[in-house]
Amino acid sequence: MTSSSPFKYGLVPSDKPSWNSGGTANVLKEELSRATFDIEKMTNFLDGGKEKTKKRRWIVSQTDGDDFSQRSEADRVEQIKKHLESFIGIHKEFAEKGYVPKDRNEVSWMSINSVHKGSLMNHYGLFLPTLLGQASPEQLFLWAPKTLTFQMIGCYAQTELGHGSNVRGLQTEARFVRENDGSGYFLLNTPTLSSMKWWPGTLGKVATHACVYAQLLIDEKSYGLHVFLVQIRDANGRTLPGIECGDLGTKMGDHANDTGYMRMKDVRVPREHMLAKGAIVTPEGKYYKTKAKKENPVMHYATMMGARAGMMSAAGGILASGATIAARYSCVRVQGFQDTSTGDYKSAELKVIDYQVQRYRILKQVALSYAMLMTGNWLTEKVQTLAQGLDSKEVIDSLPEIHSSAAGLKALATALTLEGLEDLRKCCGGNGYLLNSGIAQMAQDYAWQVTAEGDYVILLLQTARFLMKSLESARKGEPLAGLVKVLEPLRDPGFKVSSLAPAKARSAEDFKNPEFLEKLFRYRTVAAIVACGDELNNRIKRGMTFDTAWNASALNLLTTAKSHCFYFMLMQMNEQVAAGSKEDPSLGVVLRQLAALYACSQILDGQQWLGTIDAGESVLLQQAVSELLDELRPNAIALVNAFDIPDRVLNSTVGRKDGNVYEALYQAAKDSNLNKSEVLEGFAEYVKPHLDLELLENENKAPLVEINFDVAECELVEGTQASKL
Amino acid sequence: MTSSSPFKYGLVPSDKPSWNSGGTANVLKEELSRATFDIEKMTNFLDGGKEKTKKRRWIVSQTDGDDFSQRSEADRVEQIKKHLESFIGIHKEFAEKGYVPKDRNEVSWMSINSVHKGSLMNHYGLFLPTLLGQASPEQLFLWAPKTLTFQMIGCYAQTELGHGSNVRGLQTEARFVRENDGSGYFLLNTPTLSSMKWWPGTLGKVATHACVYAQLLIDEKSYGLHVFLVQIRDANGRTLPGIECGDLGTKMGDHANDTGYMRMKDVRVPREHMLAKGAIVTPEGKYYKTKAKKENPVMHYATMMGARAGMMSAAGGILASGATIAARYSCVRVQGFQDTSTGDYKSAELKVIDYQVQRYRILKQVALSYAMLMTGNWLTEKVQTLAQGLDSKEVIDSLPEIHSSAAGLKALATALTLEGLEDLRKCCGGNGYLLNSGIAQMAQDYAWQVTAEGDYVILLLQTARFLMKSLESARKGEPLAGLVKVLEPLRDPGFKVSSLAPAKARSAEDFKNPEFLEKLFRYRTVAAIVACGDELNNRIKRGMTFDTAWNASALNLLTTAKSHCFYFMLMQMNEQVAAGSKEDPSLGVVLRQLAALYACSQILDGQQWLGTIDAGESVLLQQAVSELLDELRPNAIALVNAFDIPDRVLNSTVGRKDGNVYEALYQAAKDSNLNKSEVLEGFAEYVKPHLDLELLENENKAPLVEINFDVAECELVEGTQASKL
Repeated sequence: MTSSSPFKYGLVPSDKPSWNSGGTANVLKEELSRATFDIEKMTNFLDGGKEKTKKRRWIVSQTDGDDFSQRSEADRVEQIKKHLESFIGIHKEFAEKGYVPKDRNEVSWMSINSVHKGSLMNHYGLFLPTLLGQASPEQLFLWAPKTLTFQMIGCYAQTELGHGSNVRGLQTEARFVRENDGSGYFLLNTPTLSSMKWWPGTLGKVATHACVYAQLLIDEKSYGLHVFLVQIRDANGRTLPGIECGDLGTKMGDHANDTGYMRMKDVRVPREHMLAKGAIVTPEGKYYKTKAKKENPVMHYATMMGARAGMMSAAGGILASGATIAARYSCVRVQGFQDTSTGDYKSAELKVIDYQVQRYRILKQVALSYAMLMTGNWLTEKVQTLAQGLDSKEVIDSLPEIHSSAAGLKALATALTLEGLEDLRKCCGGNGYLLNSGIAQMAQDYAWQVTAEGDYVILLLQTARFLMKSLESARKGEPLAGLVKVLEPLRDPGFKVSSLAPAKARSAEDFKNPEFLEKLFRYRTVAAIVACGDELNNRIKRGMTFDTAWNASALNLLTTAKSHCFYFMLMQMNEQVAAGSKEDPSLGVVLRQLAALYACSQILDGQQWLGTIDAGESVLLQQAVSELLDELRPNAIALVNAFDIPDRVLNSTVGRKDGNVYEALYQAAKDSNLNKSEVLEGFAEYVKPHLDLELLENENKAPLVEINFDVAECELVEGTQASKL
Repeated sequence: MTSSSPFKYGLVPSDKPSWNSGGTANVLKEELSRATFDIEKMTNFLDGGKEKTKKRRWIVSQTDGDDFSQRSEADRVEQIKKHLESFIGIHKEFAEKGYVPKDRNEVSWMSINSVHKGSLMNHYGLFLPTLLGQASPEQLFLWAPKTLTFQMIGCYAQTELGHGSNVRGLQTEARFVRENDGSGYFLLNTPTLSSMKWWPGTLGKVATHACVYAQLLIDEKSYGLHVFLVQIRDANGRTLPGIECGDLGTKMGDHANDTGYMRMKDVRVPREHMLAKGAIVTPEGKYYKTKAKKENPVMHYATMMGARAGMMSAAGGILASGATIAARYSCVRVQGFQDTSTGDYKSAELKVIDYQVQRYRILKQVALSYAMLMTGNWLTEKVQTLAQGLDSKEVIDSLPEIHSSAAGLKALATALTLEGLEDLRKCCGGNGYLLNSGIAQMAQDYAWQVTAEGDYVILLLQTARFLMKSLESARKGEPLAGLVKVLEPLRDPGFKVSSLAPAKARSAEDFKNPEFLEKLFRYRTVAAIVACGDELNNRIKRGMTFDTAWNASALNLLTTAKSHCFYFMLMQMNEQVAAGSKEDPSLGVVLRQLAALYACSQILDGQQWLGTIDAGESVLLQQAVSELLDELRPNAIALVNAFDIPDRVLNSTVGRKDGNVYEALYQAAKDSNLNKSEVLEGFAEYVKPHLDLELLENENKAPLVEINFDVAECELVEGTQASKL
């Protein structure tokens, strides 16, 4: 397309020096000059030490090539290709260097830097672990190395169209068939509409193999769910006979993941390809449970906790990315004259972060990011302690409790992260709605994590179940460990929960004191647990079954589990703050402020505080929040820079580290798809036929109207002297 | 592409009758059979009468052709074309039939049925009203008819890259230049990066004209903001000299809107093309204010209120659409065995709506939708009363208050709608993340409304400003009108706010009583207003300026404005419930339950209740909610069907009226873009080179491993008899 304009597309000259006046490059530098702590030290603290920071940066630097800045403009095929290329590229390179990630944090460092997340995360993150967990040594020996090196690409085919969380209800069938030669095989079928495999990532267009969960049937007898390793595509990407696979369609985000469906019709699978760690079917059709290795329960917990600690840290990292973007933009963006009396349209304006509501919304999420990262660190450390065999009896005793809290924490963390991202996106105003803001894309890509792999409500109710059990134990006088130790006094039927309430707050200082707040959170959780237990028991006494009573109390149980998790996080945060203070008192000061703000914002916006804080205290609470916001303000940018998230990962026009937000927005707009041609495709067909061609020939040249007015009825007005920009 | 599979793509045969077992077509019919009220009557009630329902259905039926079911798979150019075609098609047709919409509701009926929203909504919704409001009669006479019939297409070019809400700070300049022949013209420029026009819909690729807001400068004197009608494109869609326009890039949603930017370099505009209703520049460069017609203040309020009532109803309508989808899916979707003791994977399961937490989340949003629709109706009626000149002094006196509450209401309604949509989306589990669920797309398309055209925080703070003014008036003993009348007793310095508190709730029944709840909400709002006023005054007494004190109290002021709006909605809802009860007592019963649930959920999840309700009452509150949920349950589907939103508008696989959710999901998947070819484009380049070709030749035929196991160490297990599906 050629343009009739003297300025070719995108070429209105920026000749005047004033074009960049109002440039914002220095704003963030000035912000940083007000920081009261050493950013590098804070980064080390969050990473868990200087050495870890160094290692993280090394890992990150290996993946520098993986830039895909205009991702939001790419279509899905483009995104998938880019993902396949970069993911395989990165991981093969690491493998060649002999590098093996040490823990979940290192895994997430690798993947966070793969800007372009997509289907192969399932190959490594779900398919491989399934082999590791369920395959026999012989099977593992064959398939694991090929998986690691992408010689086969696998997906985890568990969920079905009609079944998600109720795994036991899956309907895919694997029917054993005996052969005359005594070999035997399975016939896999998805016999009903609702039994078709639904949602596995990588299944749609990429995977060559699948770990298929199916009900094992031998002679029409049911043996429960088992996993079958099934080849689903040939080397050219075509589906094998009897298999129909496809993508599910466009999702909110996660576009590089070919989330798929699969129907199977009499797909024959060798008997030896049922994963055989736990059970084996003989050629004659006999079913044997293998001698299940009595697993070390501690190690079992440790693995689960490791995963959950990782997900907690990952959620914290995502929220930290969002907070980084929104905090930077809120310092660059101005709105509203500082002095409204001049009437001069060029006079100075306020940064939006200096409006209290905005400041609260930003810093609340910053504090929450720190809380999640620190809780994740604490859990990671616990897991490492266990792994090194340095476990004390006390630690082992507290494991069930921590393990159960971690289920809820993981659920809560994903939900809080998504909610936080959305509010931070709104904090970026209209521009937050552009995908190139980074924050909108981030939220859309992340959203599935809240509802997938165990909806957050279901997981939190698991935590509630443990809390109710502990309450029962406490009342029976059984010993308790960890956080639920606070329930022990309940063995005395005369014990009053209200005796756990801290003394009423007498000044705003109390609400700025994390130790006071911890007591308050503890009181809330205990009171809620007891109230829930009473509600449940009353319902059962009135004749309900446990299940019915549980469901009738579920709303309250859910909130109670959340309260417990918030308490848990505050406790871990306080512990870490103490550690940080020892390392460097200037870190300690700001970390205490963050802990207090985290807690206070949960009181202001949270649930189950009725009856815990009275109206007078709530005034003090508001005062404390207002003071905390002002105290944290000078560190706003330093706190997010300490997260140390590179621009390449943020992939954000409005959240750039250098503050050149407006230049970036303009550039991204110019580079976007619709602007590839000056004239809209379809303009001639859909718009032009309606236009008044004569009118449009005028091109602003001749006046098209004459305006009649009577000077006598009007008022002559003199302008004011215009100032220079 | 050809397939090596005996089943061509998408053709695994669905031969068995069991394929559709677990079909869900009857589920919603059964649900409806339990309804306790007449759905058609409820629809009439929501529409404001039988006649209105009839008219709405007529309008909707005119636009039946506008179906675009796989919208989520279309790229932006496709979506824009489709939008242009359908929007112009619908509106030209209406115009030819001589139909003119009577009120905002009718406008929104027209647009809600234009499934494919996009840029031309700006042409009609912003460009045209600007002409109507700011053009002189001569200008209007020329441009309005051409606008109505798409002979020119306009955009509203107000916001700039650096300026949104602070309109007075806009930096685009219109400099008056005298001509020798005495004609004179303006030169328009965007002199700085931050002054480029940013965000106008239709500007990016479609509009031929723009209403450009610019600072008028004559002889370097400033005359403030004025609007200039500028042609920006020729009839072929090319930008005119000096103008650079483009799209901003892909957004979260709203893909058919070419939200754009514009730079201007010495764009010459005839003197007569400055919109001249309020001011005129003579050829000599003299500036006259026209004899501003003293507008009828009541009519001014009425117009604003009409718009806001419309936005409130629109927000209610969007949330109602989301609630419809989620309620239907929650009845169709099952999860978890009803009887967990059998161990049979085919045994019956619970509908997810029968889990309390899910039931609460769904019905809370249903109740909120009713609250918004009813408040919108109430406002619409008020506006009509005024327009008909039937206004009483009382109504006029209460206008400022209603007007100010409406600002906050509009803000709150958009925010609540977006928040509600997101939770409803989560209620649809993984499938809610698919764009073809309708609900994900809806939320993404709607999201901008919360932050655009006056961020919701800013609008709510306007409401707070009015509340503080009213408090001052009350304390001075000045008369108050409308809702803030409750502040009048404060003229007595000895008056205790606590005297407004209703008697403590003594049973759950109290919390199911909308009148009791209204008192509680009133008490909360008054207490919050007084507390805010005190906080503000104390800060000023301690030496802060009003602006600084205001900002330091902003968080509390914001929450107070919300509390006030929630009270306002409850009051309107109660009024409407009374009206509905008179019409039909069976409607009244369920509407009262909805009002109570609306109020109770705002207590459970809301703010500023500390000190208003004690711990004992909060137990009763929970009990009331639990009972309300059970009482409303049989009407769940009837309540959403009463919204009467056609499938075509919902555009949802999971929210179909007939309940055939799984068939629709499968069909949509098959039709999606990535499945147009069996093999992924790029498979050969990005995947195949890594694959183990030998391994993949096996195609599940030969066993690839041999499994060694020692029978002696294993346990022989017998299966259970499998039941038939």
